[in-house]
Amino acid sequence: MTSERSMIGTTVDYNADGKQFGHLMVPNSRNESAWGTLMLPIVCIRNGDGPTMLLTGGNHGDEYEGPLAILKLLRRIDPARFNGRLIAMPALNLPAMRADARISPIDNGNMNRSFPGHPRGTITQRIAHYVWSELMPLADCVIDLHSGGHSLNFVPSAVMHELDDKDMMARAEAALRAFGAPISLQLKELDAVGMLDTAAEEMGKLFISTELGGAAMVTPETVGVTDRGLDNLLKHFGMLEGEPTPPEQPTRMMNTPDGAFTMSTADGLYEPVVELGEEVEAGQLLGRVHFVEEPEREPVEFHAAIGGVLYSRRVQGWTARGDTLAVVARDLPGA
Amino acid sequence: MTSERSMIGTTVDYNADGKQFGHLMVPNSRNESAWGTLMLPIVCIRNGDGPTMLLTGGNHGDEYEGPLAILKLLRRIDPARFNGRLIAMPALNLPAMRADARISPIDNGNMNRSFPGHPRGTITQRIAHYVWSELMPLADCVIDLHSGGHSLNFVPSAVMHELDDKDMMARAEAALRAFGAPISLQLKELDAVGMLDTAAEEMGKLFISTELGGAAMVTPETVGVTDRGLDNLLKHFGMLEGEPTPPEQPTRMMNTPDGAFTMSTADGLYEPVVELGEEVEAGQLLGRVHFVEEPEREPVEFHAAIGGVLYSRRVQGWTARGDTLAVVARDLPGA
Amino acid sequence: MTSERSMIGTTVDYNADGKQFGHLMVPNSRNESAWGTLMLPIVCIRNGDGPTMLLTGGNHGDEYEGPLAILKLLRRIDPARFNGRLIAMPALNLPAMRADARISPIDNGNMNRSFPGHPRGTITQRIAHYVWSELMPLADCVIDLHSGGHSLNFVPSAVMHELDDKDMMARAEAALRAFGAPISLQLKELDAVGMLDTAAEEMGKLFISTELGGAAMVTPETVGVTDRGLDNLLKHFGMLEGEPTPPEQPTRMMNTPDGAFTMSTADGLYEPVVELGEEVEAGQLLGRVHFVEEPEREPVEFHAAIGGVLYSRRVQGWTARGDTLAVVARDLPGA
Amino acid sequence: MTSERSMIGTTVDYNADGKQFGHLMVPNSRNESAWGTLMLPIVCIRNGDGPTMLLTGGNHGDEYEGPLAILKLLRRIDPARFNGRLIAMPALNLPAMRADARISPIDNGNMNRSFPGHPRGTITQRIAHYVWSELMPLADCVIDLHSGGHSLNFVPSAVMHELDDKDMMARAEAALRAFGAPISLQLKELDAVGMLDTAAEEMGKLFISTELGGAAMVTPETVGVTDRGLDNLLKHFGMLEGEPTPPEQPTRMMNTPDGAFTMSTADGLYEPVVELGEEVEAGQLLGRVHFVEEPEREPVEFHAAIGGVLYSRRVQGWTARGDTLAVVARDLPGA
Amino acid sequence: MTSERSMIGTTVDYNADGKQFGHLMVPNSRNESAWGTLMLPIVCIRNGDGPTMLLTGGNHGDEYEGPLAILKLLRRIDPARFNGRLIAMPALNLPAMRADARISPIDNGNMNRSFPGHPRGTITQRIAHYVWSELMPLADCVIDLHSGGHSLNFVPSAVMHELDDKDMMARAEAALRAFGAPISLQLKELDAVGMLDTAAEEMGKLFISTELGGAAMVTPETVGVTDRGLDNLLKHFGMLEGEPTPPEQPTRMMNTPDGAFTMSTADGLYEPVVELGEEVEAGQLLGRVHFVEEPEREPVEFHAAIGGVLYSRRVQGWTARGDTLAVVARDLPGA
Amino acid sequence: MTSERSMIGTTVDYNADGKQFGHLMVPNSRNESAWGTLMLPIVCIRNGDGPTMLLTGGNHGDEYEGPLAILKLLRRIDPARFNGRLIAMPALNLPAMRADARISPIDNGNMNRSFPGHPRGTITQRIAHYVWSELMPLADCVIDLHSGGHSLNFVPSAVMHELDDKDMMARAEAALRAFGAPISLQLKELDAVGMLDTAAEEMGKLFISTELGGAAMVTPETVGVTDRGLDNLLKHFGMLEGEPTPPEQPTRMMNTPDGAFTMSTADGLYEPVVELGEEVEAGQLLGRVHFVEEPEREPVEFHAAIGGVLYSRRVQGWTARGDTLAVVARDLPGA
Repeated sequence: MTSERSMIGTTVDYNADGKQFGHLMVPNSRNESAWGTLMLPIVCIRNGDGPTMLLTGGNHGDEYEGPLAILKLLRRIDPARFNGRLIAMPALNLPAMRADARISPIDNGNMNRSFPGHPRGTITQRIAHYVWSELMPLADCVIDLHSGGHSLNFVPSAVMHELDDKDMMARAEAALRAFGAPISLQLKELDAVGMLDTAAEEMGKLFISTELGGAAMVTPETVGVTDRGLDNLLKHFGMLEGEPTPPEQPTRMMNTPDGAFTMSTADGLYEPVVELGEEVEAGQLLGRVHFVEEPEREPVEFHAAIGGVLYSRRVQGWTARGDTLAVVARDLPGA
Repeated sequence: MTSERSMIGTTVDYNADGKQFGHLMVPNSRNESAWGTLMLPIVCIRNGDGPTMLLTGGNHGDEYEGPLAILKLLRRIDPARFNGRLIAMPALNLPAMRADARISPIDNGNMNRSFPGHPRGTITQRIAHYVWSELMPLADCVIDLHSGGHSLNFVPSAVMHELDDKDMMARAEAALRAFGAPISLQLKELDAVGMLDTAAEEMGKLFISTELGGAAMVTPETVGVTDRGLDNLLKHFGMLEGEPTPPEQPTRMMNTPDGAFTMSTADGLYEPVVELGEEVEAGQLLGRVHFVEEPEREPVEFHAAIGGVLYSRRVQGWTARGDTLAVVARDLPGA
Repeated sequence: MTSERSMIGTTVDYNADGKQFGHLMVPNSRNESAWGTLMLPIVCIRNGDGPTMLLTGGNHGDEYEGPLAILKLLRRIDPARFNGRLIAMPALNLPAMRADARISPIDNGNMNRSFPGHPRGTITQRIAHYVWSELMPLADCVIDLHSGGHSLNFVPSAVMHELDDKDMMARAEAALRAFGAPISLQLKELDAVGMLDTAAEEMGKLFISTELGGAAMVTPETVGVTDRGLDNLLKHFGMLEGEPTPPEQPTRMMNTPDGAFTMSTADGLYEPVVELGEEVEAGQLLGRVHFVEEPEREPVEFHAAIGGVLYSRRVQGWTARGDTLAVVARDLPGA
Repeated sequence: MTSERSMIGTTVDYNADGKQFGHLMVPNSRNESAWGTLMLPIVCIRNGDGPTMLLTGGNHGDEYEGPLAILKLLRRIDPARFNGRLIAMPALNLPAMRADARISPIDNGNMNRSFPGHPRGTITQRIAHYVWSELMPLADCVIDLHSGGHSLNFVPSAVMHELDDKDMMARAEAALRAFGAPISLQLKELDAVGMLDTAAEEMGKLFISTELGGAAMVTPETVGVTDRGLDNLLKHFGMLEGEPTPPEQPTRMMNTPDGAFTMSTADGLYEPVVELGEEVEAGQLLGRVHFVEEPEREPVEFHAAIGGVLYSRRVQGWTARGDTLAVVARDLPGA
Repeated sequence: MTSERSMIGTTVDYNADGKQFGHLMVPNSRNESAWGTLMLPIVCIRNGDGPTMLLTGGNHGDEYEGPLAILKLLRRIDPARFNGRLIAMPALNLPAMRADARISPIDNGNMNRSFPGHPRGTITQRIAHYVWSELMPLADCVIDLHSGGHSLNFVPSAVMHELDDKDMMARAEAALRAFGAPISLQLKELDAVGMLDTAAEEMGKLFISTELGGAAMVTPETVGVTDRGLDNLLKHFGMLEGEPTPPEQPTRMMNTPDGAFTMSTADGLYEPVVELGEEVEAGQLLGRVHFVEEPEREPVEFHAAIGGVLYSRRVQGWTARGDTLAVVARDLPGA
Repeated sequence: MTSERSMIGTTVDYNADGKQFGHLMVPNSRNESAWGTLMLPIVCIRNGDGPTMLLTGGNHGDEYEGPLAILKLLRRIDPARFNGRLIAMPALNLPAMRADARISPIDNGNMNRSFPGHPRGTITQRIAHYVWSELMPLADCVIDLHSGGHSLNFVPSAVMHELDDKDMMARAEAALRAFGAPISLQLKELDAVGMLDTAAEEMGKLFISTELGGAAMVTPETVGVTDRGLDNLLKHFGMLEGEPTPPEQPTRMMNTPDGAFTMSTADGLYEPVVELGEEVEAGQLLGRVHFVEEPEREPVEFHAAIGGVLYSRRVQGWTARGDTLAVVARDLPGA
């Protein structure tokens, strides 16, 4: 965590009122353009003295609900009927998105393992550093929209973390309930170093993430959950008028305890036998890995270690040893 | 269409009774192995004097319902209770499947544009040639199982072609009805040259294809449709005992007339507003392409040219000019 | 030269009057888009009963004078004041142009060695085949605009070939004089098979090519030569009103006899000592190749085999054995 | 800035008199050669007690005037008629030069963002560290020769920086005037961290850089400017006998104030309308970006924000959003 | 087999007396050099009216005994003491050799599956075509020197084919005995289409090949066998004076009958238990494939199907399903 | 050297008795698997209170004697007849081994330059860090098995370092003598930073390495030396019963003084004239580099700077400037 300033400039004035569409100007010297720049879209909407929300999508390049919902929201908002400040970046890892990929093809950077970044590091680290050093300090709350990408699919959900600060946890839970996704997940992150999440929380910001679908696609349903969720959050924080619209089914507060994750122990073709959102019992068959190069070989079976709801599953049929096949979520006690 | 013989050998005796698991031995001289071989799985089950079915999957490497259903079927069949001969290849383009890709990373070969192949061509062309010259002539019917792969998703369906031979068309339609997929599509192929389909039909074989899902994944539902469909086909042809199990909803005979296809005219992020299987009217909004690098720009809208059912849609959010976004199918008149 | 029809469709009606901006729709099935299309820009301007010109640029992707001049011309022409038909493709090898490269990154295709192409070949071969089978037959004259690309630089010039048909040669020379480039080159092509040039000439069309600059860049001067040259050609053929504008210096009719080409016999750094357009004498030093990894080694010198004008030179300092370093052109006897 | 010593060895004795051609031995363990070495050319010429000049080229691999002029100078100098010590490296980033590229294909390293380097870092960082830790301390002045490379073209110029040390600035300006390039640029570097320039200046060395042409080529003119400039510098420092040869036109002292840089805001084909070295007025059209995939679309125009001389321009026609299109330089007040 | 002429030129006059070092000039238009040439070394030594030998090495790029022995031979021969004509190409697939690889990185061409080639095909096909159309017709005998390359190792051997022409077989056997390698192999080629061997034999030329070692290296022993073998062949044909030098151990005439080849049926690490040249009995253990990712799993064992001598073995520990692990040769009956 | 803990988990309990086959679970988030894991094989055998040996192979992925001997040893050991604890990793850089390469294709990491690693670094650095932070502290001795890989070949040897701690050196020499390789090398490592060796020695562990063959292959002889050497080491440390089996020829204690290494100064084809294990005299010819693109050019000769035994040689014929061609070892004085 250096004190050096970012070399990234911006065409947006974060203190000006109204709606500004602009870019971060990220120096990107390369073979094709010695004095080239990566122009990263950023939008600032400001009116009145309400809170500041930093809203990001495309942290991973192949997770599309967030970017689409942000683009729609930005055109939808009338600054005159807005209260506070929204700073939105719909494509945090734009080079990855252009490649329909999780990580950046420029530097193989996983943006969500790159925080707090570095002003002289790779392109991915420089973007992370700008967000961390220039944008997060302006924010009261930070919303980072994820989905499953090419390899995972999720029951649409909003996510908060277990924190030591119980007051912050209560505020996060209230925001999750306002968002109103089918599942609200309270997560104990194991590998939190480098995440935007951790960077925001360590700075004392209210932080909410999501997992809103997957398979690198969006559906009318998952975009709908995201559109309504973002509106609800802005209403919840008083930035838009009105009350959050409750979902048809109340959100389910859940977590993913020990035993929630099932990983493949073999290379082969994955056949799931339980679909997303179905209830599973401990010991129940979740799926099989078949051996296409050895058709005579019996498939390996994978069973749930705990009961609950199938919260996430692997997408591609082709599966490698060590890939996550299934995640089971459990209702929070007392939730 | 050369008369040269294939250099590919096989470890299977197509005239022997019983169940044999074996390989095609495809010479594959390369930097890493001067005298290397691609071992392509093939299975032959034979008993009695019933018909011969050639059953293939993995023609495109990222279409997994077929390969999985074939692997399950092959272990399930008891040769003693079987009538005829089943020659099955679960991974026609195995190098593509290992790469979770449509086409072969060895030679960029699209297997389904490579028929009748060539005994001295690329690996993909050599495999196609073996299937065409050695396996197809043995078959009474040819079943080639496809799904949508990484870029398309389909309502599970079985597919036949419009043919000049009306008797053959009647036999194909009967097989489609036996298969019992939610949709039975009668297709007028525009670009039929090089397809396994065309090669089989030109040889006078009964030919059935499928589109059984997509997004490079399988679901319990789509595997279920495939499992039942294959059983039904084998019963329909008298190769397994019993009657085909009818689906819960009768299959819908449809086609894709002019105006069925909608292509993107812009690069951007695709937001569908209609889901697979939904009814659409002519002129109805199907989706929008948004411009993530220019958030201020209005998205481009795409509308249905004809009414019917949304039969197929693009998967990935990231979309290029010229990509197929949506295919609408229409009930066959009188079907 | 197959008689099969192209699978490429078009959104333009070549028989309609007025100015139409459209696309060729080239099927491009690939991992990212199973049912994808390469949309290739094409423009048709028609009015009255004048001749048909087929005008192409971007045959090689990094030669930019042609594409820029065509784009400017297409917007400049008023169909009401036009006579005949102009069919223009500013980016024949669009995938190469997107990569700022000579050849296509899709199939490594050199478009100008791909004629007459094939309707079932690679993308490059399919485009060539469409141009050959659908567009060339419509044309009275074919103009294909080249420059030097990344590796060569030229004195701006228009080019015709030595032909057996002396009448056609006279028509071509008249067109060259109308174009009015600093040099008008009469070329004896050594390796003519596969070229668009040859395909057009064998079909009996008047054919003109150009070499309008190079180093993958354009200059105001080279664009100016091209703008004026195209206007002049259209006036020469009576498709635009008025007389061709003569250049300030009359064009010089030249050729490149035996000894015109100098190739490097060593790998190293090229230092030219003569600039484009300078007069050279036989035996004069043209340049040296230096050895940067062996600074003590004397450079190799290259001398002109014939006298004339330095018509073309290698661009990049880094040079490989066998690269063309210099081309000397000589005034045509009696020209 | 570690105190660890470099692992790079040298075959040259920097304290010996005479002319030595040798190599830096950079350990380069890789798949093809477990105990391999990158041999980097270095030359030391010493005689008498004059000053030490460190002279480098090929900091970026596709900038050729410097390497060529250094190679010629090294063979030209007679040590007996030399005073002082010249340590010259004609190809600082030799792996990049072998690839005709700006940055190293081994580690994607931009040498001029890698200073002061690290003895255990990438190959590029190790070379930078050797130069910084072993060569710079020996030097009185450091001369690093750049050109525009593949993507930029420059009016040949020598460059110094605005420094706090006014005495050093006066010495640098005197050296620039001795060099005698058409333009002498006084630069306020915005992104100076990691540059060889900064490393040298922070060590208290007199530092001069250049921009001597571009487009990855050299011309007789730009090599001539470089040859004469190097001779003049050595005479200016008393290392060669005689007085610097003044240029035909006196050098113009200029700088690049706010507004000097114009970047593209669109992807497309760049058409410049002003050539290098031409005078421009504020507001004047500099060029246009055309849309070859949408020929009907009007090009975007780019205008000069300030008046002056067109000092630098983009080379390639194909241009991406964020690429520098033009740089305007202004005469220094009072210069 | 087209009748078109090759576009490849040569700097050598095959009818001139003396020793000429020259090149084939293979047009190689590419992104880096629009008018580039691959310069392929060729040497012609001629004196008197003796026979013509075409001698080639580097048909596969990573087989080095042949190229080294040819280079040594060419410098060793005194044309004045030579009788006949030697046309030698030490690096038939030079691009592959520069990459230390079997096949060409330019076009993935396996030279020895590319005959008779095509004058308009890939670079590899063009070279093959030149050899076939221009050089082979000049030759009385054709000698093509191979080794095992990266993936195979051989007991040094000379190789002839079983032919219908018994007289030609007798001449080939005599040449093999003159060469004097440890093993002389009489081969029944299974996949002979496209080989230089077949092309030469179909043209009625005496043809000899070799397998002289492997693992992409040479040893003093294998170079020695090759040096002596080439001298012996030239003496045998009366092109050099004197008698062939007999080897210390008489050559063993062998063949590779059915059962000679053992292929891996598993991916893993190969441990051979028999060394090259050892006698093996039918049923004897040849080696094992171990599973490094599953250390608990028992290795798969591979046994000899026939008895004889271990003639060839796989090199790399890492082994894929289908790779040739071992080849056993057997003494020819009556040999 | 951070104090952060590793994110890598393990399925093995290092404190449990018996033989456990398990994996390190290395998080490996990537495009194909957002929540993927690299499963790295690890085996723990424990019985009684004897010492702990950490035994590693596959530090470089193409060095196969170690991995094979470890796999065989692990299955061979009966825990009931074992004393102490063996923690074995047969494939430290498993991704490199899967690619038959020295370094990891995931991150280009050279494992043996990556110690002590970092818990948040690249995959290679994370594995190194786990070994350093979790496994080395448990060990009394550390044995890391190397061979020459694709580019080097060695006389089979065990290796220790010159250390300041003379008692540790005596213990290492005793272990080397117990191992009983043909050569026992006492090495003064020049570039020791980052090596597993250094990390172990700095932690005060007894450390032994090996160089057991090369060319990316194994031979029955080199596997035999390794099998016996590992058994001997375990007996020497009292972990297996019995006395070490002495080799047929006593091991030779040697070192590699100044002048031991010969590097190529030219690109070309390497012809060695001395074989591994042969005695050489100072000044003796070791080999030549030939110029296949310039057959007329005399080869460059390389001579031994010191006398001794040819301990190591380059494998591939194709050789680059700076590659190590030969290493000569000398008997230790008094050894």
